[in-house]
Amino acid sequence: MSATLLFSILNVLGIFVFGLSGAMVAIRRNFDVFGILVLAIATGVAGGIIRDVLLGAVPPEALRTFWPMAIAAVAGLCAFFFTSLIERFKRPVMLLDAIGLGVFAVAGCRKALVLGVDPPGAILLGVMTAIGGGVLRDIMAAEVPRVLHEDVYALAAFAGATTYASCLWLGIAETPAASGAVLLAVGLRLASVRFGWTLPRPPSS
Amino acid sequence: MSATLLFSILNVLGIFVFGLSGAMVAIRRNFDVFGILVLAIATGVAGGIIRDVLLGAVPPEALRTFWPMAIAAVAGLCAFFFTSLIERFKRPVMLLDAIGLGVFAVAGCRKALVLGVDPPGAILLGVMTAIGGGVLRDIMAAEVPRVLHEDVYALAAFAGATTYASCLWLGIAETPAASGAVLLAVGLRLASVRFGWTLPRPPSS
Amino acid sequence: MSATLLFSILNVLGIFVFGLSGAMVAIRRNFDVFGILVLAIATGVAGGIIRDVLLGAVPPEALRTFWPMAIAAVAGLCAFFFTSLIERFKRPVMLLDAIGLGVFAVAGCRKALVLGVDPPGAILLGVMTAIGGGVLRDIMAAEVPRVLHEDVYALAAFAGATTYASCLWLGIAETPAASGAVLLAVGLRLASVRFGWTLPRPPSS
Repeated sequence: MSATLLFSILNVLGIFVFGLSGAMVAIRRNFDVFGILVLAIATGVAGGIIRDVLLGAVPPEALRTFWPMAIAAVAGLCAFFFTSLIERFKRPVMLLDAIGLGVFAVAGCRKALVLGVDPPGAILLGVMTAIGGGVLRDIMAAEVPRVLHEDVYALAAFAGATTYASCLWLGIAETPAASGAVLLAVGLRLASVRFGWTLPRPPSS
Repeated sequence: MSATLLFSILNVLGIFVFGLSGAMVAIRRNFDVFGILVLAIATGVAGGIIRDVLLGAVPPEALRTFWPMAIAAVAGLCAFFFTSLIERFKRPVMLLDAIGLGVFAVAGCRKALVLGVDPPGAILLGVMTAIGGGVLRDIMAAEVPRVLHEDVYALAAFAGATTYASCLWLGIAETPAASGAVLLAVGLRLASVRFGWTLPRPPSS
Repeated sequence: MSATLLFSILNVLGIFVFGLSGAMVAIRRNFDVFGILVLAIATGVAGGIIRDVLLGAVPPEALRTFWPMAIAAVAGLCAFFFTSLIERFKRPVMLLDAIGLGVFAVAGCRKALVLGVDPPGAILLGVMTAIGGGVLRDIMAAEVPRVLHEDVYALAAFAGATTYASCLWLGIAETPAASGAVLLAVGLRLASVRFGWTLPRPPSS
């Protein structure tokens, strides 16, 4: 599979799962269908818009082409009609969010590298793309963003983007590098929740 | 009346009413006069700044010229000195917000079209211009943005921008197209509040 | 001392103290060490990123070079390891925030002037650079930004940026102009807290 095709699929997947996660937060709050759509779209495309604005690639892809918003809107409608199905997962927002986190960390890092940003900056842009959508979703829902209070969140995005950039630097082909980095980031995030991994906290004083 | 003059008036009107709405939120929270000015200015110019950044038209108009911030500041001072007058309206923030919403949806859509964005992207930019100021106002006041929990809000902005773009595409002149689209968006928003129109919500489970 | 060196020092100082202030807010909320780092970095570099995006200087300095994020991360680690030392100050977040406010107001104003923005726009950009980091910190911690409810906050940033721009316009050399403007802004902010200066509020109705 060519790298371009892989990244198109990853991008669609990331927008879709972040859209679902935004919609689930909106549904939990009992917003109406248009509020659900707005939060699904905002969560799905915010990371990419932040990335494109920081890279100077304006108007951002999410406005130049129609499909990013359309995918997020479809995710919002899916969440609206199949709420109970999605809620069968124990913690659906956490799960969807983890997939989006890993996918966007690697896809954001790659777009920055393609546009000529150095690896350290590209890794940071990947992390910002990955956490941007979730931060906006949580801020709009008047919650503290989970990147701040959940353990191994930004760290998972950072690990994914760093792994991807390191693999390319070591001469590994794009497809295995990207696939491995996404799996690592998603796995790290899910494992940390499953096994209750915690990072050190300051001594409570 | 020429279209350029009409849009200048609409832009001033939008900044002024959004500035008033931001100031009224700040007054309700008992902020001091400078906090009121900051929230009035942020609410009045945020939508236009977001629009200009996404279009790559930087530095944004609100920084290149002095008057957008000045208009919003005047709105803040008006709200400060004439609070009780404005509060005679039953729900002043809702009313002012509705006017700003309709005006910025059409003005934002037009600026994007003028700068060469395709109609679907221009409509979305109009919606983002329209809801941006209010979202920032509510986030800064630590409230859930009304675009998420009030029915027929983003939908009204979307209807206004779509009507404007469609009218131009059908060959209707700018002045009637813009006036009609603004009236439609404002009317739709106010009617939905007046008559309690609601959009479907997910079945509470 | 050359003006360029002075501004490099001011910039490092501003990023460091804002990073400390973000970390202290995160520590107070009992976030883990990575959450502390994220809030330290976000608070330290957000103002500069907003400034660069509005000026069209993308990718922003904080992504093009590695050190702004590194300084903010070091500040986060310092706050983590020396929490009790920093807490000896009565109100550490307020104090650090005041220094960052003054430094970034002048540094932001200067960068805008260097890039050819007119003085009124440059002053406003200075104010936005100065308040941006703190607003993001408080929004992410789900608090009302202190720029809105604390007296003499945006006013201090405004005074600093205006003094700097006025001094340059009067032909005063950069180094004394910048030093004086920073001291004025920081002093104004601290004095207002120390002496309980208040600005007028609307009559509570």
